[in-house]
This record gives sequence, structure tokens and C-alpha cells, in this order.
Amino acid sequence: MSRAFEYSTNGMERTLIPAVIISKKRDGEKLSGAEIDYMVSEYARGSLPDYQMSALAMAIFLKGMDSEEIAQMTDAMIASGGRLKRVSERPRVDKHSTGGLGDKTSLILAPMLACCELDVPMISGRGLGITGGTLDKLEAIEGYRCDLSEAQIEQQVREIGCVITGATESLVPADRKLYGLRDVTGTVPSIALITSSIMSKKIAETLDALVLDVKWGSGAFLGTIESGTALAKSLWANGERAGIRTTALLSDMNQPLGRMVGNACEVEESLAIMRGEGPREVRELTIELAARLMVEVGRSSAGDPIALENARRVLANHLDTGRVMERFERMVKKQGGRLEVARRLGRSSEFVAEKSGWLGAIDGQKLGQAVIAMGGGRKVAGEKIDPSVGIEMLRRLGDRVERGDVLLRVFCDDDAKKAAAIDFIRGSLQIVQEPVETRPLWRETFFHS
Amino acid sequence: MSRAFEYSTNGMERTLIPAVIISKKRDGEKLSGAEIDYMVSEYARGSLPDYQMSALAMAIFLKGMDSEEIAQMTDAMIASGGRLKRVSERPRVDKHSTGGLGDKTSLILAPMLACCELDVPMISGRGLGITGGTLDKLEAIEGYRCDLSEAQIEQQVREIGCVITGATESLVPADRKLYGLRDVTGTVPSIALITSSIMSKKIAETLDALVLDVKWGSGAFLGTIESGTALAKSLWANGERAGIRTTALLSDMNQPLGRMVGNACEVEESLAIMRGEGPREVRELTIELAARLMVEVGRSSAGDPIALENARRVLANHLDTGRVMERFERMVKKQGGRLEVARRLGRSSEFVAEKSGWLGAIDGQKLGQAVIAMGGGRKVAGEKIDPSVGIEMLRRLGDRVERGDVLLRVFCDDDAKKAAAIDFIRGSLQIVQEPVETRPLWRETFFHS
Repeated sequence: MSRAFEYSTNGMERTLIPAVIISKKRDGEKLSGAEIDYMVSEYARGSLPDYQMSALAMAIFLKGMDSEEIAQMTDAMIASGGRLKRVSERPRVDKHSTGGLGDKTSLILAPMLACCELDVPMISGRGLGITGGTLDKLEAIEGYRCDLSEAQIEQQVREIGCVITGATESLVPADRKLYGLRDVTGTVPSIALITSSIMSKKIAETLDALVLDVKWGSGAFLGTIESGTALAKSLWANGERAGIRTTALLSDMNQPLGRMVGNACEVEESLAIMRGEGPREVRELTIELAARLMVEVGRSSAGDPIALENARRVLANHLDTGRVMERFERMVKKQGGRLEVARRLGRSSEFVAEKSGWLGAIDGQKLGQAVIAMGGGRKVAGEKIDPSVGIEMLRRLGDRVERGDVLLRVFCDDDAKKAAAIDFIRGSLQIVQEPVETRPLWRETFFHS
Repeated sequence: MSRAFEYSTNGMERTLIPAVIISKKRDGEKLSGAEIDYMVSEYARGSLPDYQMSALAMAIFLKGMDSEEIAQMTDAMIASGGRLKRVSERPRVDKHSTGGLGDKTSLILAPMLACCELDVPMISGRGLGITGGTLDKLEAIEGYRCDLSEAQIEQQVREIGCVITGATESLVPADRKLYGLRDVTGTVPSIALITSSIMSKKIAETLDALVLDVKWGSGAFLGTIESGTALAKSLWANGERAGIRTTALLSDMNQPLGRMVGNACEVEESLAIMRGEGPREVRELTIELAARLMVEVGRSSAGDPIALENARRVLANHLDTGRVMERFERMVKKQGGRLEVARRLGRSSEFVAEKSGWLGAIDGQKLGQAVIAMGGGRKVAGEKIDPSVGIEMLRRLGDRVERGDVLLRVFCDDDAKKAAAIDFIRGSLQIVQEPVETRPLWRETFFHS
């Protein structure tokens, strides 16, 4: 049933008609650059209604876009606003993660790279569904502001080398509007829409290099390594064509990263890492992501290219000597945050193993729902969250556990919410009777060549 | 990429969340009756925004609905408003056509059936794209009103036996709203959405029998006989399950029905038929559609079932003796129309054959665009149309033509618009060098059993 009431555009090829453009994509046709520009720019300036954009988003979701269309979509989104300005001679770098449980590397990575004389203009987002948001985590710090203006962002990057804040009104406004729409219309997990959303924001940061942490597994929104690989490839290609040296790591999100999942408790774990303590895998993944960026843009004092191994060593040293912590404190203070005000955690309860065996699988979706049930995450955009709740995982996949061992702690003051969370947690942990093989935390896939 | 930020509905199965329902259909799952009811009823009462309904409509377009879902969608639409009341002991019947070029049978059929002591509460629509609308045609008659209230509809059916008017505010308001949305979001030609839209309105008319004229071909919105058959089957099944004796004819729309395409000129042709004149195929198709209804609900004066052949004879007699014309005049007068005021036609121009041969094909889409270009049809809903423009086809498919023969006349006062129309017309007619086989005008497919 491909023919519609939609009259063809014979003899009026230059007239762009939303319903005709939507129908083209619906029928699996490739959209032209002019058509994509038209839809995005009209939407950004309020001339194209939400209902046409959501129909197009669903058609894109189900019919896909090729790499050229995705590039045009990305550029059209960027063109809806301004770009951040370069503020120093230092290389500009950033990281983007597709999100997962306990993913707090941004808090450590931004100041760590600033210690290496790199500028890190990190525009972050809030959490939605089971994946937490960097801004929500930082707002667990009393007074921390995520609403800096572009002038403030530029000033802070010039002074401190790093910033972690939210998108401004004028930076990719089309994405801001489209993301909110996708969230309520079932059109979030589309490679084309995710790629253009992420990359438009990153390209608008005016970067030299970008590292992507593409997460797959039960605690990520991409369940399989195949879907993670497809997204990584699309993101990577889009970064490269925009002239940004882009590296993508594929990392395993079949269990939380580190021990802590929640907002205040993830800040505490990040601070531990910056003291040279904390869970090894958080430290290692953060160093690995940062090292990739150093290799792309860094030079040794003699001007030679930096080898990956050297970059890792330099970064570890910055952590161990407290320089990352010092930079983080300066950044937080500049953004109004008062680290010295203790962050309250909810009342702690323990969750014990009901039988002996090996921790065989963690259902990250259910574990994430446990955090949402306590008020630590959002079901719908805009909901207020409670930074004090969270989960501390005491065991990792593959660990031997005995009946009665404490598997995790829950932080929550509200007994009813805690009970709801425990229900989710009970269904999320699988104890098996055979030892299980563990996987490496990350697997590289695409890197700048 | 099937997993989304959309948290699952674990433990809250009874909560209906629009984004989750949309995602289900997006992923090709079957929606429950409760989910369909929820989306339609919330949309009808303004609680569900257009942008969620348009995303759902696109997902339905691309993933389809099974017959049970279509039935539930139809019933949910009906439940958004009231139903017409039966006003006499006479059987209630109606016809619905999926629309095509020059399709004016409704104007003749409604008064013709009223002559047979049947009630015809015909709720019609306006034209959009290349297919004209019965209401637009009738409004070419000075003063004709298409905005009768339900009370007025009931009164007129009781008195005259027939009415042709637009949907009222309270009759299937969900369809009214959804149809307008589909029109601008590329979601019109979906079997599920067309079926529920058409059948909700017909079921709300409280009918005993319904005949469907499903058109396929270059001048219909369904291009192939296969797509026409699929829609006919879906409509027919939906009518039968609602307890309406339903018959579907599949009719050929690879050329206009009759000679006239346009609004005022189609009224003239309909009047000619009601005088026992006019093109044979218009008369025959109208009689055939009406005869099917008579067979379903009619009885001879002796109370015996009516045979199809007898029904055709009775109907032809009503036309030839002027009874249909008389009933039509009463109906028009009752609705404020003044048939005696001459309808103006645009200045006539002739379009001649550029070579000799046989008229091999007519591109109905282009021919329809010619009418739109002159202002006789709408590109977008709500546009005002000019009833005076139109086309008179002088040749039919398969006719032998000689170079210089007049193929058609164009009625239009505006020279620029006429020139644009001629461009479309030139590309729409194909003269071939071999005689072509002609097809029967209709082919029966599904009938009440």
C-alpha cells in the first residue's frame, strides 16, 4: 500500500512538504540533505509541529538511515544553534558514554585530562530509565550548578581546563527538543537518532579528539555486543567524518561499573578513585578512556607521540599524587559546589545470598529498576530524584558466594520504597551451581587511524 | 536494538504508559484491547497529545494490526462518541467508496435507495489529494449544507429516507481528530487505520447492510488490485463481525468514472444520470452497488427475497421514471440547496491528441493533480476549493484516436492554473500503437454469506 493520498511532487520538486518527506522515509527511501535540513531546522524554530517530527522519528526508527543521512541529520542539528569556542592552544577532548549502571568515569576523567594540559568542555546529561546521569551525580554535591552559560563554560575551561555542565539553550537546541520528544514516543533506541543526538553535541563542543565508551549488556540500553558494535561503528564514523579523532571502546555492562549505583554514593566512589583507592575496574576503565585521548592529541615533553602505555602511567600518577582530586575540587568549587558538606546516604540494609554457588548473572534492568523504585532514577523526564538512595554491590560476576553472605547493601530511608527495590533486586541476581567464565571489561573496536 | 530506556512494566502491568504501548507496536507486538481503548479514548478526550498518537499511527502503519486489533480499534473509535438512531421500520443501508477520480455514485445512490423504501443515513467526507469528496461536490450546489446536527439527520431520514452530510461533532470524534493527524503525518494508507476509520463511522450509522466500493488503479489511492483486495477483505470482515451485512465490490479506477472530474461538472453528470442519460458506466456501477444492498435487505411486495437481476431492474426503472431525481431534489432542498441556480463552469479549452493510436493508459495521479492545480482539489486539509474547474474526458481507455482528435476538455478561468493543469494532463495520457484490452469495471470479491 505504498501509494497515498499524498500527491507526488511532480513539477514542484523544490517544494518541501513535511507529509511527503515523512512518507518517503516511511517507505524506506533515502532523504535528501535538503529534506533533512528542512525538517530539523523547521522543528528547532517551532514551525514544524511535534506530531510530524514524532511520526518521522518513528519512520526513522523502523526504516533506518544510511551514514550520509545520519551525517546530514547531525549537521542539521548542530546548525540549529551555536558551537563552543576554543579558548586556549591546548587540544580539546571529551568522552561520551552511552550509559550504564554505576558509570561514574566522567567525574574522574575530566579533571584527570585537565591535569595533562588538555581542555575538556564536557556537556553532559541527566539520567533517564535505568542509566544514571552525570549531572544528577554531581548535583548530589551541595550547591553544584549544571546550568552554566556558554561564556561561563569558556571562562572555566580557560582557567581550570575542565567543566561538566548541561547543554545550554543555544547549543544544539534541536537535540534538546527532539530528545524530549523521542523519550515519550518510543523512538529512543534508534542508531540513526542516537548517533545524531550524541555527535551533534560533541561536534558542537569543537573537539580535536573524542573517546566513546559504548556499553552493552544487561545494565546498558543495548543488550547485545552486536547492537553495541553497530552503534559504536555509527558513532565512530560520524566523528571521523567531522574531523574529530575518534576512538570507540566497547565495554561490558553486564554488571555495575564499580560497587556503587546511585547518585551520592557514586560521588563517594569517584572521590575514592581520586584518592588512589576504590574499585580497580573503575580506575582502569577511566585511565584507559583518558589514555586513548592522550595518544590522539598528546605529545611528550620532547614533542614525540605518546605511547598508550606511557599515557596510562602518566594518568595513574596524576591520580596517585592527588593532582586529579585537586583539579576536581577546583572545578566543583568554580561551579558552586561544596564538597566539604557531607553527602547523606540512606539507611543501609544488607541483602544476603539465599543459597550457595557462583554469582552467575545480574539482570541490570531489574537492578536499575530497584534504584528507580527508591527514587534514585527517573521513569519520565523531569522527575525529581533522591541522591541519597543507592546500592553497593559487594560481589562481582563469577564470585563464589555462600548462603548468608552479604551480596549487596541498599541505601534508603523509606521502608516501602526499599521493599519495592528489594523485590526487583531479588529477581536480578542469579546464583548458579557451576563456576562462570568472566569477560574482560572492555574490548576495543574502532579507533582513529 | 529492541531494548530501550523504557523500563519494563514489571510489577505494574496494569499501568498503561503511552511510550510503552507505542514501543510494543513499534516492535511488532500485538496490543491488548485495554491498550487500544486507552490510547484512543485518551486521545479523543485530549489527554494524549498528538505527538504520541502520530508515533503510534506510524508504528501501526509499518507493523500492522491483526483483525482483532482492528476490531478493537474500530470499537474504541465508536465509543468516543454516539451513534445515529434508527428512525423508522425501514432497513438502513449505506455505501462507502474508497474514492477515485470522477466517483459521483453517492449523489445518485442515496436517493435511488430511498425510492426503494430504504433509509440511507450517509455520512460523507471531503476530498483530499486526488480523490474528490462527496461533500465538496454537493456544495457546488448553491446553499447546500453539510453540517446537519444529529437531530436534523434523523428528522430528514424519517421524512425523505436519505441524507448526505458531514460527520457531526459527537459521531466518532476520535476519527475526526485522528484522520486530520494522519493526513499530515504520512500515515493515511494503512489497512488497519483505514479500516477502523471507515468502519467506525459506518457502524455508528446503525446499518443493516453496507456495500463497499473498493477502488484500485492509477486514479485510486490503492495502485494494485492486490492492495485493493487486501483492504476489501479487511473492511468486509470488520463489517460482518459488527453484524452488518457487508458486500465489497472491487472496481477499476485506471480511468475516471464517467466523463466528468471536478465538482460542479460532476453534479451535472449526476443529474444527467438521474434523467436517465449520462455515461453508461456511471449508471451501471451505481445500480450495481444499490442492487447489492437491496438483495441484502430487500423483499419483494410478496415478501420473497429479491434476486439481483430484479433489483437492478427496479433501480433502473426508478432512474428512468424520474423518481430518483425527484427524491434527490427533495433531499437537496431540505439541506438548503438551490438546484435551480445554475452552476458555473470555468471557460472550456480542448486538449487534442498529438499522435494517432489507441488510448493505452491514463495516469490518474497526474490527472488528479491537474484538477488540484486548477484549485478543484486540496493539497492539504482545509483548503478552499473552486467548484467551477474540472475535466471532461471524451475518450476512454482502449478507444482509437486520431492525431488532432479532442481527448478532453478543461474547465478553468485562470490561464496560469490552466497551463499548470495542461502540463500534468500532457504527462497523464499515453497513446499506444497497438489496440489494448479493456477490463470490466468491477469485479466482485467479498459478499455477505
